[in-house]
Amino acid sequence: MSAWKYHNPVAVTFGWGCLSQLPTLLKGRRAVVITFPQARDTGLLGSLQALLGSQLAGVIDDVQPNPELSWITERYAQFWRQYADCVVVAAGGGSVIDSAKMFLPGVASGDFHEIHAALAQSQAPTVQRALPMIAIPTTAGTGSEVTPWATLWDRTSAKHQKYSLHLEQTWPEAALVDPALTLSLPQVVTRDSNLDALSHALESIWNVNANPVSDGLAVQAARTVIHHLPALLKDPTDQHLRTLASQASLFAGLAFSNTRTALAHNISYEMTLKHGLSHGLACSFTLPMVWRLAQGRDRQRDSVLQSVFGADVHDPATALEKFLESVGVSSHFEDYGVSAADAQALIQSSMQGARGKNFIGSTA
Amino acid sequence: MSAWKYHNPVAVTFGWGCLSQLPTLLKGRRAVVITFPQARDTGLLGSLQALLGSQLAGVIDDVQPNPELSWITERYAQFWRQYADCVVVAAGGGSVIDSAKMFLPGVASGDFHEIHAALAQSQAPTVQRALPMIAIPTTAGTGSEVTPWATLWDRTSAKHQKYSLHLEQTWPEAALVDPALTLSLPQVVTRDSNLDALSHALESIWNVNANPVSDGLAVQAARTVIHHLPALLKDPTDQHLRTLASQASLFAGLAFSNTRTALAHNISYEMTLKHGLSHGLACSFTLPMVWRLAQGRDRQRDSVLQSVFGADVHDPATALEKFLESVGVSSHFEDYGVSAADAQALIQSSMQGARGKNFIGSTA
Repeated sequence: MSAWKYHNPVAVTFGWGCLSQLPTLLKGRRAVVITFPQARDTGLLGSLQALLGSQLAGVIDDVQPNPELSWITERYAQFWRQYADCVVVAAGGGSVIDSAKMFLPGVASGDFHEIHAALAQSQAPTVQRALPMIAIPTTAGTGSEVTPWATLWDRTSAKHQKYSLHLEQTWPEAALVDPALTLSLPQVVTRDSNLDALSHALESIWNVNANPVSDGLAVQAARTVIHHLPALLKDPTDQHLRTLASQASLFAGLAFSNTRTALAHNISYEMTLKHGLSHGLACSFTLPMVWRLAQGRDRQRDSVLQSVFGADVHDPATALEKFLESVGVSSHFEDYGVSAADAQALIQSSMQGARGKNFIGSTA
Repeated sequence: MSAWKYHNPVAVTFGWGCLSQLPTLLKGRRAVVITFPQARDTGLLGSLQALLGSQLAGVIDDVQPNPELSWITERYAQFWRQYADCVVVAAGGGSVIDSAKMFLPGVASGDFHEIHAALAQSQAPTVQRALPMIAIPTTAGTGSEVTPWATLWDRTSAKHQKYSLHLEQTWPEAALVDPALTLSLPQVVTRDSNLDALSHALESIWNVNANPVSDGLAVQAARTVIHHLPALLKDPTDQHLRTLASQASLFAGLAFSNTRTALAHNISYEMTLKHGLSHGLACSFTLPMVWRLAQGRDRQRDSVLQSVFGADVHDPATALEKFLESVGVSSHFEDYGVSAADAQALIQSSMQGARGKNFIGSTA
């Protein structure tokens, strides 16, 4: 490992019930809440309204899974006219936090087309000013609360384009990680989102950008998911297990905030778009396969990967496969309607994608 | 562990030879270098001059060990008149980086007395503007490159006062950690500074402010020092061992940047002031004794401490004592000219100090 960098400016507050610290983090500023439609029914929106009182300037609660270009394009200009003095409080899963990040950079035209045009040319938009954000994850998976990345989809175009926004200005100012908010998650969301965290952890290890800080965080995160997710799925109201799941997600987020993801994520996008898999499932069922591709490429990477299951486990990729089976996830493409030939083609093309190139197995 | 916080905004660059990245980090800004007198002879100052070229606005190279109030008071006003447009580049050990931090906050009067007066009342000075800093450690011990703390001594007063400056504005913007810069350290400085890192690591574990992020970093740091320092002292030119020592120091710094230190550090100040021990020695020879005081206070803390030596080691405090012996450091106060009675009095009074109160054994 030659010279490496680590930087994560997000101020993290973590703990059961720490949502109550939101007013302290706001320091008197006004807030606009961005959340998902069900937040009203789960009581989350009510809690936020009660906490914010007269500091609450507005609520946007129609965020949809896998943020669409058209959604942000329709809302961006009006948002900046209404909320230019606000802190953006994003409370939800990855789609909510990613959607909220799209609002943060303010551009001269006041129109999201300016940002879209820059993204389409793989350039950074010229940011005139930016809004601060406090991110409050309600799943234990996204990690988006401690990264500057936001994924944006354009399914209306023939190409099913995917964009990734990442600017100095899209780092959240603060992350408020309250595991109590994950209590109401359905079983399958609990599982798939925590598998997303596992994927972030492993993808940051078999990554050309891996470094000792990200490795330490990633190994802790991966071990926690593997050791505790099966028990959590059996007892989803257990406070300690919910806390561990949220902590694993946070640690994985801190790790991949500095490495980005790799091959499994690049494969996942097509599995979500074409085959309808949830993001967490799509980027985790391939992990044993990607682990086998990673093995033997680099002694140091092998050693870090080995430490996930410990020195006693001779075939960690198979151990991972068994772990996934134990939570009801098949590692075989066929079980998701993809033939062996199509899977090979997808893997090969994914190696060439932006995230695929981060994979240590793509550089050999 | 209830709700916890972690925040470290410093952008870290780490690696053998990474000093060459200083111009990239400066992004065209002018720089004033703060360093120690020997930097001229070791070639460090020449390297910095060559790297900075016409961006170099000035050099202050008379920093002394254990920064004195009078030193900064005499230089602060003139510094702000000359270098108000500069990045402060601090290249040295803890004393250099701490001294440089004193210049960062700019106050209305332009006079350090204003800052001193605030510190004397345990208040934060009103900062009008602040200079950014790039910290370049030349020892593998201080951790100051990734913390906002700066220690300042006033030995002229009858009380031998110690002040700690810490402001939002005293976080370095960036840390440039190049293990090659530690190659020229004398044997005893290599040892004592790396023992300082070990002390930072352990003190962040038996700390009321400990959290899962700091624990993970601290355990990695402590293990690295314990496993590799003896070999480094035998082969001080080994590039890999120098790199591990610097990495341990960085990780310990990241850990205690969020917890502060604890009892061993509070004891150390008198051992340095009255008995002349180097800072690293003063805050590490008591670690086995403090470990024994920490044990049994808290199950979770015990478990994290146990993981430093591993589950197989039944008496980790004694293992630590043997480790210190192996690098020539006695754990007994008598060997430093302090009687058992005086040692007991010092330990008891240190428990009441600002850092002592962070110790888990002081709260029971």
